[in-house]
Amino acid sequence: MSAVAGGRYRAVVEYDGTDLLGFQRQANGRTVQGELETALARIGWQGRAVLGAGRTDSGVHASGQVIAFELDWRHGSEALGRALNANLPADVAVQSVAECPPEFHPRYSARARRYRYTLYNHPVRSPLAARSSWHVWPALDLAAMQQASAALLGRHDFATFGADPDQGSNTVRTVTAAEWRAAADGWHTFEIEAEAFLFRMVRSLVGALKQVGQGALTPAQFEALLAAADRAQCPPAAPPQGLCLIAVLY
Amino acid sequence: MSAVAGGRYRAVVEYDGTDLLGFQRQANGRTVQGELETALARIGWQGRAVLGAGRTDSGVHASGQVIAFELDWRHGSEALGRALNANLPADVAVQSVAECPPEFHPRYSARARRYRYTLYNHPVRSPLAARSSWHVWPALDLAAMQQASAALLGRHDFATFGADPDQGSNTVRTVTAAEWRAAADGWHTFEIEAEAFLFRMVRSLVGALKQVGQGALTPAQFEALLAAADRAQCPPAAPPQGLCLIAVLY
Repeated sequence: MSAVAGGRYRAVVEYDGTDLLGFQRQANGRTVQGELETALARIGWQGRAVLGAGRTDSGVHASGQVIAFELDWRHGSEALGRALNANLPADVAVQSVAECPPEFHPRYSARARRYRYTLYNHPVRSPLAARSSWHVWPALDLAAMQQASAALLGRHDFATFGADPDQGSNTVRTVTAAEWRAAADGWHTFEIEAEAFLFRMVRSLVGALKQVGQGALTPAQFEALLAAADRAQCPPAAPPQGLCLIAVLY
Repeated sequence: MSAVAGGRYRAVVEYDGTDLLGFQRQANGRTVQGELETALARIGWQGRAVLGAGRTDSGVHASGQVIAFELDWRHGSEALGRALNANLPADVAVQSVAECPPEFHPRYSARARRYRYTLYNHPVRSPLAARSSWHVWPALDLAAMQQASAALLGRHDFATFGADPDQGSNTVRTVTAAEWRAAADGWHTFEIEAEAFLFRMVRSLVGALKQVGQGALTPAQFEALLAAADRAQCPPAAPPQGLCLIAVLY
């Protein structure tokens, strides 16, 4: 089968996921993939699908999503970025574009993904941050949350905290970073990096770690939840608006 | 005429102005004042109007708007804040409430207001910041903008940059601070403080200062615009989403 004519490009994409039904194209409703494909089609793209590194959920944001597509384009990659952004809606934008080797696959070539989750730990909610954080009160014990998070590092069966996105049963993943950072005025961020993530894994972890921060779970109980590898024991997941895919590493 | 029964309260209010038609109540559409009055009415308020310190435009945000109202309330001011927030939509929230003397008026008692305008000076727009900043490119000369801004300090007739909000003709105001701050990656903020502002004044100033930053006006020409005191000479105003009322000083 002959490939689409033209070179292969990779791009870093930022989006405000609030009004998008996640990355993956759907029959009805706006998605990141759908918006990218529509914009590409307007500048001559005839491919079958834009490839993405991570299938973010409905409502989840990205500042560092990576995509790839093939396109016959003769005006340079900077002009390609401008042409795409002129055809994309306000909540999606290509931050950079570059040619890449034909074998580059944003998902299978990735060696790690990094997500950031933002909590606002304050007695009063903040309307200006409502779209990009989870408002949590009473006060969180960040030290306990950091202690529990340390148990995530390394290779574990994360079955408690998510499902295999490919509907298989491989729920073993390797986490290489899991750090809470407390900022002024109750802004706390959790950054986690892994080779790959299960479906809902970051939000499920943050939901459980918030229970640790509020004393509903001890760090030891959190560790036991992880060891159980049992999805039925998962505490409620954190909401999507606090989550952002910040980087994909190759 | 007898006043509404109960004590007088002042509150600091934060809002995301994107989907609001400004502070002032209108016959049709959501406004900050309208939402506050609806929430207050649900907890027993029977007053005529909530008073505000600044009548922000449609699309303009606030982290430090100040309001006052009278209410018969017996559960303490912290519980009052919680009750109001439970009845306000996601884009408006009371940050603090306290009893105040009956003569306190958020607008007439104020000795100064402080606004912040946020510019994103980058080749590519940022979807995650689209609701809270003005995307501007090419690169701005911040030093020229700061030089021009220095001319604003002190007592001047600002007729070029706005109209008297009370439909009078007093366009003389005293500006006590006007500072640009350049942040990493093209995030620039302009903070301006004055006893009071004209209608559209901050957005008009930022629109003109952006022209200074892009070389369309020299700092001397900007100063001449100010001296002309002629509304007809005003460059296009900056869009509302970059503007935030951050403090009212008493």
